Amino acid sequence: MKITEIRDETVSIRSDISNAFISFSEMTVSAVAVISDVVRNGKPVCGFGFHSNGRYGQQGILRERMIPRLLQADPEKLLTEDETNVDPFKAWNIMMRNEKPGGHGERSVAVGTIDMALWDLAAKIEDKPLAHLLAERYNDGVLDDEVYVYAAGGYYYPGKEIVGLTEEMKRYLDAGYNTVKMKIGGTSLARDIERIESVLKLVEKGEDLAVDANGRFSLDTALEYAEALNSYGLKWYEEPGDPLDFEVNKRVQEVSETPIATGENLFSMQDARNLIRYGGMDPKQDYLQFDPALSYGFVEFYRTLEMIKQYGWSPRRIIPHGGHQFALHLAAGMGLGGNESYPGVFEPFGGFSDTIPVEDGRVRLSDAPGIGIEEKQSLMPVYEQMISSLIEN
Amino acid sequence: MKITEIRDETVSIRSDISNAFISFSEMTVSAVAVISDVVRNGKPVCGFGFHSNGRYGQQGILRERMIPRLLQADPEKLLTEDETNVDPFKAWNIMMRNEKPGGHGERSVAVGTIDMALWDLAAKIEDKPLAHLLAERYNDGVLDDEVYVYAAGGYYYPGKEIVGLTEEMKRYLDAGYNTVKMKIGGTSLARDIERIESVLKLVEKGEDLAVDANGRFSLDTALEYAEALNSYGLKWYEEPGDPLDFEVNKRVQEVSETPIATGENLFSMQDARNLIRYGGMDPKQDYLQFDPALSYGFVEFYRTLEMIKQYGWSPRRIIPHGGHQFALHLAAGMGLGGNESYPGVFEPFGGFSDTIPVEDGRVRLSDAPGIGIEEKQSLMPVYEQMISSLIEN
Repeated sequence: MKITEIRDETVSIRSDISNAFISFSEMTVSAVAVISDVVRNGKPVCGFGFHSNGRYGQQGILRERMIPRLLQADPEKLLTEDETNVDPFKAWNIMMRNEKPGGHGERSVAVGTIDMALWDLAAKIEDKPLAHLLAERYNDGVLDDEVYVYAAGGYYYPGKEIVGLTEEMKRYLDAGYNTVKMKIGGTSLARDIERIESVLKLVEKGEDLAVDANGRFSLDTALEYAEALNSYGLKWYEEPGDPLDFEVNKRVQEVSETPIATGENLFSMQDARNLIRYGGMDPKQDYLQFDPALSYGFVEFYRTLEMIKQYGWSPRRIIPHGGHQFALHLAAGMGLGGNESYPGVFEPFGGFSDTIPVEDGRVRLSDAPGIGIEEKQSLMPVYEQMISSLIEN
Repeated sequence: MKITEIRDETVSIRSDISNAFISFSEMTVSAVAVISDVVRNGKPVCGFGFHSNGRYGQQGILRERMIPRLLQADPEKLLTEDETNVDPFKAWNIMMRNEKPGGHGERSVAVGTIDMALWDLAAKIEDKPLAHLLAERYNDGVLDDEVYVYAAGGYYYPGKEIVGLTEEMKRYLDAGYNTVKMKIGGTSLARDIERIESVLKLVEKGEDLAVDANGRFSLDTALEYAEALNSYGLKWYEEPGDPLDFEVNKRVQEVSETPIATGENLFSMQDARNLIRYGGMDPKQDYLQFDPALSYGFVEFYRTLEMIKQYGWSPRRIIPHGGHQFALHLAAGMGLGGNESYPGVFEPFGGFSDTIPVEDGRVRLSDAPGIGIEEKQSLMPVYEQMISSLIEN
């Protein structure tokens, strides 16, 4: 087999939401289709990829560097030894050829998006869900049938703060989620505490609510919030300070009785390792949120997994950022602790298969081959349009 | 005044050189022209920017995010209070609106390139060299008339290793440089030592030679080189390990009698701070090489300067990577320790004004307004072509 073509498109996921740091009014995502010469049911087998919200589409880097490098390589250099399937590890090395070390951002998103498509393709060619392929190859065959998920949202509703927030949270709980996450840091501490208490009335226990500061706080504010949150027994306190200010993270971790969760804005094994080395994170209680789609894909994520194990961390402490099906398969196949979910936001890229609802805060994986984009009716048209010329010919 | 237009172009700087990590056969640079409505001698006053080698042109991020944000802002939001000049600090905040924290790479290059053009424009409107403007505004009026520079090169010459290397180094010394820098790590340690010793015969003292591993070494190899280099009294041992592996840096620093130099692949104040916090660097002997063109420009560099001072470092310990005129002006205006230079490589972007030669290892600044691209005959045509339609009209 061989890869015959790689197409990409930039898709708007604009929304009216804001976190404590940015507005999503101009947000875009890159969608990538990797097309193979393997034909099944009269159609070429294609791998589909995209990336998580928050970092914008990467057409420039995709079209100028990553896609040309893959297509200019000898086709067999991208394949497994028996040449029956793609080898995303080999493809990764080709994409990263002539790229200097350090500076992990944007490029990591472009590579992550193609990597997702390559793994989707690899699993489709083996005709199995990606989680099965990963568990067989890289996790001693151990596969989780279902994955813990939590609903991330809890936005600000200017003018109807409490009503807007509690209505949103009720929708998540009604949809089958047990754990919900809300934004903090977009208003005063007193007002945030009011918002937190209003949501705590809806959930069973403190552990069913996580809070997210999106890296906004100074050390003093981060500590002030940590103290104020201590009594509620919350699930976690997310990204109190700048994602690269490991000193703030460490100081907050020391005073926080709430577990700390962070890592969504660290895009390489090396950056993740610096958090583990310097951030004061506790492998017994804290959470890591590295997002494979923004961080050079599963190939780099695998290195990150090996790294955290060396530092005494279990993969169960990782609950990736991003709310996408790729991370869902990684969670099931590699024994992670769960996955984020954004019900109804960042459509059509957010969320999982249409066919399998969330039940009791968990999602069962479908049997669809690959990462299962074909089972997501809102998302498939993006890719159908990208490859329509292939099907018509 | 106002900014009327921003144009960009991707320019090839392909060359046959390699460092220990990458080949430069496909390397590109973004050139940016910021056009104002101020007219002098019948022409609009324009600011010109570009970025250093090693990280590729950034047309996607420039055209999709940074340039539209600047042009969609109210024009006076980019200006000083009296509206007679651009304010690059204000422009910076507008470029970085709706950008999440962390992930500093590529984006930092796009912003750095525009920032260079904005400072060039600001200094031209004040009709003075950028170094003068910076010294007046941000360095208590203290300006260095000349700047220490060193010639970076020392490439590998397959088949004629020693001859090729020593001929190259002689060219630099003949051109007026006292300090030269050579690559290591592209061959065996024994062979590198031979190469080093061949160059030491050409220079006056060990301190006139620096060596650069380009982040290639494992901890063991980095330590082995450190020990082997100890007896030569070299200027510095550059980037022994991965730029984000501060633990390797620290371990090497501990055994190295040669000063350590690193930082060219850290693209934000936060990343630079992590080096200072965790990398074991000694403010009395080691060197910092943060490159403003790759790292969000002078606006972020100013934050980095403030940060290093808090940690007890003098700006004199910074000798930026990149070999460009922008860093030369920053060095003179902000009291840095010097600047890199790549004689004859990365043309037309490498090197400084044609009118002012290197003498005794130092460069005097010219009196040209801005950063002085107009005095570089090989480079000006790039910008003349970009703005030719403006002049003709």
